[in-house]
Amino acid sequence: MPTDHRSRLARAAETAGSTGLDAVIVTPSADLIYLAGYDPPLLPRLTCLIVRPGRDPVLVVPRLEARLATDAGIDELAEVRAWQETEDPYALVRAVVGEEASRVACSHRMWAVHLLRLQALLPEAGFVGAEGVMGRLRSIKDAQELDLLKRAARYADEALGRLLQTRLETRTERDVARALGTLLLETGNDEVTFTIVGSGPNGASPHHEPTSREILFGEGVVMDFGGRTDGYCSDVTRTVAVGQPPSELPRVHEVVLEAQEEALRTIAPDVPAQEVDRAARRVIERAGYGDLFVHRTGHGIGLEEHEWPYIVEGNDEPLRPGMCFSIEPGIYLPGEFGVRIEDIVTVTGTGAQRLNHATRELQVVR
Amino acid sequence: MPTDHRSRLARAAETAGSTGLDAVIVTPSADLIYLAGYDPPLLPRLTCLIVRPGRDPVLVVPRLEARLATDAGIDELAEVRAWQETEDPYALVRAVVGEEASRVACSHRMWAVHLLRLQALLPEAGFVGAEGVMGRLRSIKDAQELDLLKRAARYADEALGRLLQTRLETRTERDVARALGTLLLETGNDEVTFTIVGSGPNGASPHHEPTSREILFGEGVVMDFGGRTDGYCSDVTRTVAVGQPPSELPRVHEVVLEAQEEALRTIAPDVPAQEVDRAARRVIERAGYGDLFVHRTGHGIGLEEHEWPYIVEGNDEPLRPGMCFSIEPGIYLPGEFGVRIEDIVTVTGTGAQRLNHATRELQVVR
Repeated sequence: MPTDHRSRLARAAETAGSTGLDAVIVTPSADLIYLAGYDPPLLPRLTCLIVRPGRDPVLVVPRLEARLATDAGIDELAEVRAWQETEDPYALVRAVVGEEASRVACSHRMWAVHLLRLQALLPEAGFVGAEGVMGRLRSIKDAQELDLLKRAARYADEALGRLLQTRLETRTERDVARALGTLLLETGNDEVTFTIVGSGPNGASPHHEPTSREILFGEGVVMDFGGRTDGYCSDVTRTVAVGQPPSELPRVHEVVLEAQEEALRTIAPDVPAQEVDRAARRVIERAGYGDLFVHRTGHGIGLEEHEWPYIVEGNDEPLRPGMCFSIEPGIYLPGEFGVRIEDIVTVTGTGAQRLNHATRELQVVR
Repeated sequence: MPTDHRSRLARAAETAGSTGLDAVIVTPSADLIYLAGYDPPLLPRLTCLIVRPGRDPVLVVPRLEARLATDAGIDELAEVRAWQETEDPYALVRAVVGEEASRVACSHRMWAVHLLRLQALLPEAGFVGAEGVMGRLRSIKDAQELDLLKRAARYADEALGRLLQTRLETRTERDVARALGTLLLETGNDEVTFTIVGSGPNGASPHHEPTSREILFGEGVVMDFGGRTDGYCSDVTRTVAVGQPPSELPRVHEVVLEAQEEALRTIAPDVPAQEVDRAARRVIERAGYGDLFVHRTGHGIGLEEHEWPYIVEGNDEPLRPGMCFSIEPGIYLPGEFGVRIEDIVTVTGTGAQRLNHATRELQVVR
């Protein structure tokens, strides 16, 4: 079933209208892929899709990429206006948006160089982020998107399973990360998005960049990684022990797992996102590790690794069926080890369903 | 020889001061790699380096990436201020920049979501792009950078040479693009940045995305590709004929080559960038193909594929020794074929030197 970009564009235009926007300006990013299936190279020349309530969308594109855009079928979704190298593309945007526009949204990843030029040419317009339109639309996955996220999660689980059949001890973090990358491709992903392998004390740095450090007997290893398949991302974390784990690790692992399960039990339609964060945090605080859970509980996932909704204190956005996000509590003991357990979940009509199924028990491997 | 980030930071602060800026805010991008050698994952949480005239730089970083930043040695270059998940990182930036700041620059790739928040918290400040500081600094390569660009160019030339020893006829564009990607890695690159393979009429789309179209006898094929080695990019284009070329192709190829050589002869210190574009364009216009040269003559290259200086009408920035950019005239006959020839060149004390050495003669291959 081909993606119905026409109806996504219509919903974006409608949401723009109902939130008082004159236009939404979408530069190359997941927003543009979502709305129009177009993914041009990310380069300084301005490409943008302009969505307006009650009017047809317009794509502003450098002339040398006009063929690329029509090859991608954009001309069936939007009017294509190509600009020449010596033309000012921002003036073209102004003409489409209208000088009288008072409220204009731009996609959250639009480059500053573009936003600053647009602000200068539309001095009367108030610019806001487009997350109110795009984040909201994209956060509710349809059946096809959910299938892709499930497939991506399955590939990630499988990559981990195969990795753990090999020996980790005495290999470097970088070597294990590379092996994970290869497995992510072999299991069916189109792309590796990231591979974090943090051994021993490095596990206490949540976004650790794999190094040439050798993994030793008696250490914990945090592995957090993901790939992309047909545009959709995976993101899973498991913490394993190589041989006999540090004495406090099994207890910490138990607390993190209980926090993850408690968060999962909290998920239901209409529950504010922050309640899920609070549920996980309460478990960890009660166990005396509150100060060592240094990040939010989760983030949405889809065409981007991190997107709406964010599962964090301060976000009272109610959860909705079809939302997909990570639940990934962690405890980090500086200089010693870290533990994080992460699954992607989706909100159902009554609760939550996990997309990852790799075992969550503490695995002792070699 | 390790990169001297300290002196780059000092030059950035000095240039900021001399151009009337209170601060330059640098988010993760080539700008941050250039100034501080730091390349964190590109995710929504705010990381930024703040450079101020006459004061020490400050890195604002999410707490969960504080270890990542210090592992990268940032704490020796800048004061590190970590923010907690429930803190407002933009308020932290305001405190560092100062509420009285009147002119603040931000890196050209900063996401709109960050810029909009900074503008809201610093309503008195005028925001501008940081290219006046960062583009200018980065456009002049030092000896080490020039060596890396030469190495990257050599790898690209070698990849092309090896590809042309294999048969192109009856292979799909996508298959050839994949083979080029593999060769770019095998010759020594860390990463493939892009591979354009446009056969027959697809060659007339300058940024063509390779398809399942089969390359046929009697067609031209435009191959434009690049990789990255130790951070620095390559970018080279050659157009070959598979068997007997279309009758007009050899003549068009001759014109493009002459335009490229004429552009090269124009390059010298103090020559305005646009003169190089004009020189290439004049040759193509005289041959009667002016309307079919649909893009500028070139772009700078370094940590980014496209950066300052742009070789385009309207850019009267004088060329300086150490600048590196592409010279890539092209002629595109819609529905028939395209021809583009591209080399990276560097400005010397007296003229220009090519970094690519793959033959520029029209090669007839199978």
